Amino acid sequence: MDIVFEPTNDTIYFEEPDSGTIIYEPTMSQKLCGVTRPEHFKGVTSIVLRLFNLVQPNRAYFGEKDYQQLVIIKKMVRDLFLDIEIVPCPIEREPNGLALSSRNVYLSATEKSAAAVIYQSLQLVKTMFTEGETDSNVLIDNACSFLLNKSRIKIDYFKIVDNNNLEDVLHVHSNCRIIFAGFLGKTRLIDNAPITK
Amino acid sequence: MDIVFEPTNDTIYFEEPDSGTIIYEPTMSQKLCGVTRPEHFKGVTSIVLRLFNLVQPNRAYFGEKDYQQLVIIKKMVRDLFLDIEIVPCPIEREPNGLALSSRNVYLSATEKSAAAVIYQSLQLVKTMFTEGETDSNVLIDNACSFLLNKSRIKIDYFKIVDNNNLEDVLHVHSNCRIIFAGFLGKTRLIDNAPITK
Repeated sequence: MDIVFEPTNDTIYFEEPDSGTIIYEPTMSQKLCGVTRPEHFKGVTSIVLRLFNLVQPNRAYFGEKDYQQLVIIKKMVRDLFLDIEIVPCPIEREPNGLALSSRNVYLSATEKSAAAVIYQSLQLVKTMFTEGETDSNVLIDNACSFLLNKSRIKIDYFKIVDNNNLEDVLHVHSNCRIIFAGFLGKTRLIDNAPITK
Repeated sequence: MDIVFEPTNDTIYFEEPDSGTIIYEPTMSQKLCGVTRPEHFKGVTSIVLRLFNLVQPNRAYFGEKDYQQLVIIKKMVRDLFLDIEIVPCPIEREPNGLALSSRNVYLSATEKSAAAVIYQSLQLVKTMFTEGETDSNVLIDNACSFLLNKSRIKIDYFKIVDNNNLEDVLHVHSNCRIIFAGFLGKTRLIDNAPITK
């Protein structure tokens, strides 16, 4: 049997969310999307821990599309000794490679088509890595050039980071992630991919 | 059977405590002792939640001597839906009224004797309240004068606060606490008492 628990603010918070007990991951939360949204992940961890304590799940499923969120929650679970298995769920994509997102409704048909270059640029990095390039700067420069030549996307960040701590890597290994955020028109899009041989 | 769990830093923290997930109560933590020690209660809640999750107790006992800590932990337990009963333990005192504290070893015999005025000043407030005085300013002014006349104690704060949120009260009711912090020589002492009729 499937059960949906869809609590309102009143169930989760006893007072204004900003006045209640805050859960905060202080290092990775400030990187990547945290640079432009410094309070965002504080809200995520504060509500997810409440949800975990209310539901007491054995397993919790988080999409890899929000990769930074996934890694921060895994760290929270480890740090706080929660007996919960965090199960990552692979990114679902449109046929052209665009990662599925609730934000895609803001894209015009033309933009949706143009946005395919994001996935193509991630694939370009993977291909170059498979062919032997391990210099992070070279890989990123190629991916950014590709992206900027083929589209009007404004890049927020395009990085290769260590899977576990989201630190920038200089020499890419197979425990890394290519991770992108940028704007197409007014719509902020994020995407990422594992680097594997 | 009694069991003591006495973990080291290595058990509680996977990395430097400041890099791990932080638990933070944002309102009461900044009052009273939080004014001079703004990071203190962040450390308390961060380690106590880890302890709770490791031990998974039905009940946890906290002394009323650290009254602010007790109230903040009760709020954390409520906010995070922890199924733990927080049991307050009354303050233990020397025969002269001085609240027992690990810090009392820093007091000379003369200072220990002088420190009795702290408890006497708390009692003074209770007596005046019982006799009908409910103006917080009047009560506190009398207690501070008493304390300063009878000792060389330097007052950090001396307040009457609401039991549940540690907000200053103007008109004292019987859900309040008299709460003191100050220095005798180099030793910081804290004490408090409930206000009851």
